[in-house]
Amino acid sequence: MEIKNFIPGSDEKINQLLRFTAEVDKMTGIFRRTMLLDKSRHENDAEHSWHIALMCMLFKDYAPAGCDVSRACRMCLVHDLVEIYAGDTFAYDPKANEDKEKREKLAADKLFSELPENLSKEFRALWEEFDEMKTPDSRYAAAMDRIQPYLHNTLTDGHTWCEGKPTIEMVNKRIGPALETIPELKDWYDKNIENAVEKGWLKR
Amino acid sequence: MEIKNFIPGSDEKINQLLRFTAEVDKMTGIFRRTMLLDKSRHENDAEHSWHIALMCMLFKDYAPAGCDVSRACRMCLVHDLVEIYAGDTFAYDPKANEDKEKREKLAADKLFSELPENLSKEFRALWEEFDEMKTPDSRYAAAMDRIQPYLHNTLTDGHTWCEGKPTIEMVNKRIGPALETIPELKDWYDKNIENAVEKGWLKR
Repeated sequence: MEIKNFIPGSDEKINQLLRFTAEVDKMTGIFRRTMLLDKSRHENDAEHSWHIALMCMLFKDYAPAGCDVSRACRMCLVHDLVEIYAGDTFAYDPKANEDKEKREKLAADKLFSELPENLSKEFRALWEEFDEMKTPDSRYAAAMDRIQPYLHNTLTDGHTWCEGKPTIEMVNKRIGPALETIPELKDWYDKNIENAVEKGWLKR
Repeated sequence: MEIKNFIPGSDEKINQLLRFTAEVDKMTGIFRRTMLLDKSRHENDAEHSWHIALMCMLFKDYAPAGCDVSRACRMCLVHDLVEIYAGDTFAYDPKANEDKEKREKLAADKLFSELPENLSKEFRALWEEFDEMKTPDSRYAAAMDRIQPYLHNTLTDGHTWCEGKPTIEMVNKRIGPALETIPELKDWYDKNIENAVEKGWLKR
């Protein structure tokens, strides 16, 4: 990985970590479908990752049994890194999701190979665990990853829904695992689905 | 705290946490002096907080004795939240730093009172500990907070230095504690100070 104008010091591992730090700044240029709440522009991956990591701290009293909230935070920090090379894949675009796994695996091979071995293993393991959503940590982190864009949609006139036109069924399927993990969100979720239908942002 | 268009569910604590989640999205509109590495615009607090929390994960082999790296990550996630109400204070602006403490204390009183009591205490304690830089966790987190803008300056033609015109002494004083915490960064730091002087970004 070439970082333009990087002037290295004498410690090769430190140089490698500084280069990686510079490389991941590209997360600020990977845009998601979600709008920022001030509607000034689409949210980027850096902002999104921070937001859901902070949500892990906020909703900790609702974390599932056996969940290490701190580890879920760290999972959120790295969960979208592969998009630096694979790009963002819209959750409600079936075609783009067909080769998502393959694209992201190639991106992961490239990105994580740029890290020292112990970190390479750790980051890859966190990313894979997040995607599989089988452990308490990953179910909790993934719940935040799904609730956050839902919240944004409710507060930005259903921006992403109006643009991508998912059915209610698709939204229910996407957010369902989050509501299973944190059932206390269900009533808020339901009321906002009702409102979205009333406003015409989502079609039955 | 009023969140426009927020439709609550029946669980008041969940509503409070969702409102807070929406409120802190304002971090995406608090701009720092630091440029993004693609020079497209100034970095915002959400991006910065994510970046330095991730750096905590990256540099963990250099964390000081007794440092809980996961906790340092969480500290990074919340360390700038008060700027939602207090605004960003440029490190090299002596005048703005005169009343920084007072402004941020008032902002903290307002912001953290919007949280349930256990989180209010936790967030405030993390923020205060970060600012004091006395514990291993806070010295490590604060090191990332100082190294990241330094790295950005070295890769953006000294953007912030050319604009704010700090002396080398001011930069040394600012970054010094980070180099004490992670001495392995010193050689890279020195070489880049030399380069900055050569290029005219920093004056002796």
